[in-house]
Amino acid sequence: MNALAADLIRDTAALSESVTRPIPGSRKIYIEGRRTGAGSSPVRVPMREVALSDTPLLFGAEKNAPLALYDTSGPYTDPDARIDLAAGLEPLRARWIGQRGDCASLSGLSSEFGRKRASDPKLDAVRFPRVRNPLRAIAGANVTQMHYARRGIITPEMEFIAIRENQRIEALREAHGSTGLATGLLNQHPGEGFGAAIPKIITPEFVRDEVARGRAIIPNNINHPESEPMIIGRNFLTKINANIGNSAVTSSVEEEVDKMVWAIRWGADTVMDLSTGRNIHTTREWILRNAPIPIGTVPIYQALEKVDGDPVKLDWEVYKDTLIEQCEQGVDYFTIHAGVRLPYIHAKWCLAHHKESFLYEHFEDICEIMKAYDVAFSLGDGLRPGSIADANDAAQFAELDTLGELTQIAWKHDVQTMIEGPGHVPMQLIKENMERQLRVCHEAPFYTLGPLTTDIAPGYDHITSAIGAALIGWFGTAMLCYVTPKEHLGLPNKQDVRDGIIAYKIAAHAADLAKGHPAAQARDNALSKARFEFRWQDQFNLGLDPEKAQEFHDETLPKDAAKHAHFCSMCGPHFCSMKITQDVRDYAKDHGVANETDALQQGMADKAREFRARGGEVYLPASSDPQTS
Amino acid sequence: MNALAADLIRDTAALSESVTRPIPGSRKIYIEGRRTGAGSSPVRVPMREVALSDTPLLFGAEKNAPLALYDTSGPYTDPDARIDLAAGLEPLRARWIGQRGDCASLSGLSSEFGRKRASDPKLDAVRFPRVRNPLRAIAGANVTQMHYARRGIITPEMEFIAIRENQRIEALREAHGSTGLATGLLNQHPGEGFGAAIPKIITPEFVRDEVARGRAIIPNNINHPESEPMIIGRNFLTKINANIGNSAVTSSVEEEVDKMVWAIRWGADTVMDLSTGRNIHTTREWILRNAPIPIGTVPIYQALEKVDGDPVKLDWEVYKDTLIEQCEQGVDYFTIHAGVRLPYIHAKWCLAHHKESFLYEHFEDICEIMKAYDVAFSLGDGLRPGSIADANDAAQFAELDTLGELTQIAWKHDVQTMIEGPGHVPMQLIKENMERQLRVCHEAPFYTLGPLTTDIAPGYDHITSAIGAALIGWFGTAMLCYVTPKEHLGLPNKQDVRDGIIAYKIAAHAADLAKGHPAAQARDNALSKARFEFRWQDQFNLGLDPEKAQEFHDETLPKDAAKHAHFCSMCGPHFCSMKITQDVRDYAKDHGVANETDALQQGMADKAREFRARGGEVYLPASSDPQTS
Repeated sequence: MNALAADLIRDTAALSESVTRPIPGSRKIYIEGRRTGAGSSPVRVPMREVALSDTPLLFGAEKNAPLALYDTSGPYTDPDARIDLAAGLEPLRARWIGQRGDCASLSGLSSEFGRKRASDPKLDAVRFPRVRNPLRAIAGANVTQMHYARRGIITPEMEFIAIRENQRIEALREAHGSTGLATGLLNQHPGEGFGAAIPKIITPEFVRDEVARGRAIIPNNINHPESEPMIIGRNFLTKINANIGNSAVTSSVEEEVDKMVWAIRWGADTVMDLSTGRNIHTTREWILRNAPIPIGTVPIYQALEKVDGDPVKLDWEVYKDTLIEQCEQGVDYFTIHAGVRLPYIHAKWCLAHHKESFLYEHFEDICEIMKAYDVAFSLGDGLRPGSIADANDAAQFAELDTLGELTQIAWKHDVQTMIEGPGHVPMQLIKENMERQLRVCHEAPFYTLGPLTTDIAPGYDHITSAIGAALIGWFGTAMLCYVTPKEHLGLPNKQDVRDGIIAYKIAAHAADLAKGHPAAQARDNALSKARFEFRWQDQFNLGLDPEKAQEFHDETLPKDAAKHAHFCSMCGPHFCSMKITQDVRDYAKDHGVANETDALQQGMADKAREFRARGGEVYLPASSDPQTS
Repeated sequence: MNALAADLIRDTAALSESVTRPIPGSRKIYIEGRRTGAGSSPVRVPMREVALSDTPLLFGAEKNAPLALYDTSGPYTDPDARIDLAAGLEPLRARWIGQRGDCASLSGLSSEFGRKRASDPKLDAVRFPRVRNPLRAIAGANVTQMHYARRGIITPEMEFIAIRENQRIEALREAHGSTGLATGLLNQHPGEGFGAAIPKIITPEFVRDEVARGRAIIPNNINHPESEPMIIGRNFLTKINANIGNSAVTSSVEEEVDKMVWAIRWGADTVMDLSTGRNIHTTREWILRNAPIPIGTVPIYQALEKVDGDPVKLDWEVYKDTLIEQCEQGVDYFTIHAGVRLPYIHAKWCLAHHKESFLYEHFEDICEIMKAYDVAFSLGDGLRPGSIADANDAAQFAELDTLGELTQIAWKHDVQTMIEGPGHVPMQLIKENMERQLRVCHEAPFYTLGPLTTDIAPGYDHITSAIGAALIGWFGTAMLCYVTPKEHLGLPNKQDVRDGIIAYKIAAHAADLAKGHPAAQARDNALSKARFEFRWQDQFNLGLDPEKAQEFHDETLPKDAAKHAHFCSMCGPHFCSMKITQDVRDYAKDHGVANETDALQQGMADKAREFRARGGEVYLPASSDPQTS
């Protein structure tokens, strides 16, 4: 460790404290897998377990079992984990990768640019102190999860994912059975999956099969062993991505790591580092070594930096060196030919050189590189709509056809592939996007930005797009790229990132509920039961943002006692429907009338039927003189 | 005017200043109607006109005609209007109402409670100073807009609405034709209306016909002549309602008026006053006299107050007096038998009295009262789901059948009627709600709260529910009741009200776009053109919240010059796609290559076709050795 990094280490230690306080009411648990590889210990899958208080005496004094939630926050929210950003996270997957015997440690970086950076003394002050030598597939080997899957191999990554996706639903099933809402959390509305095939329980074999057929990807570069395996596919929980990245205005290394940790705290499943400007190589190293989630990039951004931003000067060699540089750092997926701005860059290049884009010409070379590290493609949609006006136009759909064909080439190399989608689409045109993508891209996972369903709300595009995201997620999109309130207006600050992520967690969860994902409704049911029973603290803790919920509640009823009160600030003690329910029960009991809420509600429904049976004439004659017109 | 109100007048004058500053970049305009009644001047329909700057020279130096927007903010945003809350707004509709000759001014209030309030000296300090004597239909007359519509009468209210709904789309059509995006704002994606019948132009006759068949309502009590006519129906723009109201914690009269003015500033089409507690009669008077939008209430809240909150003591006489009291103040629609808490209240009453709810028994009496003032029904869904778990259950749908039958009784009296809906519904079950409502309620307008599409985000229910609201609005709901971020947690403050309203304006507009409402897409197109041309100020001003957009932009690029810059903070000057587009154009021009963005995009699409034609083999052989697995 170099001496000059000490300042940085102090800074990073400070920041980790501010974003890693425990999430209220929950603790980190680890679920062990059942399969053990040769000489290997079982996989340990982290989850966040929310402790629930007992049902109050008034409502039956039940014990409420804790609920396990999918957790993207990594070791940062585990008070037992020792966080040292300068050391990086534990390389959780290192043993699994090593045991497969199909890759080797290189003696140094293969990329010219990487080597220059490594030997530049000016970078000593900010360089990540413990750089490992990179791994690469040995000659003739292919180290992608798709490659293993197609050979029938269930990797520890796949087992990890199966356990993670289930969120202990089996335990819940055993504990609760599937009786009424009061005791069971498993009641479920029938889902509508539009052809999705979500099983009642996710098995490692199901994970393998979905990856083998290209319907899901596991973005896990062998040089990013710190990442906790996750899967992107329409038959799994809908995922969300958060973008971070500095811009012309310099942000420091620790700010960028802080942003990443902040993003996963709120639930980002992957993070794309879209940094431009100085030190992106170094900053990325810090991010990767401390990221328990897959990291994606758009390599052309950095390649352009290397030629001073002039697209005409770009060539395959510069681009290729950038790919290798990032592969060896551990980037998990690359957006290739992506982003609304890229067609113009390519266009300028093509005009200058009077030939086809080198990305087209070298597509198989790119596959060769990516399969040696297991980097996944995110095939970018350069011609996506920039506004509602040009949604679903001919250029967009023609490009989608091409992406489908590129997918088949990638699959020939067993390179995992997902497809990027729009953007800006009014609601009635969203379904067509999804259906076409499934058809022409052979069910490769779809990864969309929003889409925004209207352009008229600058400052609120997390909401205009959460509407589109929920819809397209329901229709089958596997991962949703978030949009913050600052979209089109400025760079998001931490509050914007939080707002964007929560909006997208809502969209993803609403989509999962609508598709009928077994693990999704249990959380809604638990929160609904807590609400009915006035278990305030449980309501906060089961929510996506316990801190915000608590803060809002305390704003109106700050006293601690109010959290045990059998009413809330909406109606006050006088008009509380829940309190009245109890009064009615008590009254009915005292007067020997058939009681209980269910009976009352049934009674109301009976009245409705009775009314219809009487031909709707029950109100005639009315007691005062009717003046029928 | 009494002396003691002076304090209040000073306070109200102060508050009106804080919420009525002009909306940036726009001015109030008034569009005159063409029809004139006997001795009557034409209707004058207020709109908000956004001035647009010229297209920069770089993009062709076009003039951009100003865009007229639907405006709910009333005279408050008109700098020429003299606002005096103690005098109330101009009674815009008084002449129209008077000219019909079917109502008479009473010598005083008919309600016993109202008379007591009027003569209580303790209220002198807060009483609205200029109480008018109420109007009521003369014996045998029916003053509802539905009654006129069914007799073939087009009222000034109907003409006003037709002009208002069109938002000057005819003028836009004349000015622009329907050429490409660059010059025309009228390009439109085909809508999907699920059976809605939205005409290309809204005529007064169309308004009349929709009201006559019960498919739309015009909530306009004859005692609320200050209101600017608006319509709620699925073939018109989707409307939103905002709830205000004090609670156990006392709010002052001026705070409540301030909330109403604040809500309409952001776009609330109607406001429901859900106040409980002391002085609700008096507070309501202030609100109504200053409200340019229809006001709704839930009369049973006040009726319960009158019997000290004990449902058992409630009787028809108390309830009836409350209805009359509010009819004569000018409330425009009543939620009857509504709200999740009411079944319990009714249940308790029924248990106590061993008989049917008086609301059932006296339903025709209620119709008699409402048609004498033209108050509309909002038939409440007492059995609506309280959580995702019980969405679409048997009790809910049985009650909906009953509401359909009540609708037919109300229509027999020509009483305008809409139907309240849920609440909490996962996405896949939303459509069934809409389809059933249309079927069993005979296309009476649907008015839903959200619905929330998941329960797991306390603190963000404006978003969980905006998703559901956009969907159900698209499917045919005519008015969406907003939800604020504080839902279930506390009382909304002004910021929460603003956030809730903007989320719902987004939902309503996304629904209008998806249905293909002619006036909806023009605004999106205008904003999109401004974005392409880097007219920053126009982007802000065309948005739903110009102040927020500007503030967000200035946070990153505060300098005024940046508002004329041809790049934004997202990508910086270096990676700006728009700048690159222009560079490509220039480059192509200089080099004699076919230029323009469209041509480039077309070129990319051609490449895609070419690629397919070559059987996808264009990438083989690649230039480095392929290692196909």
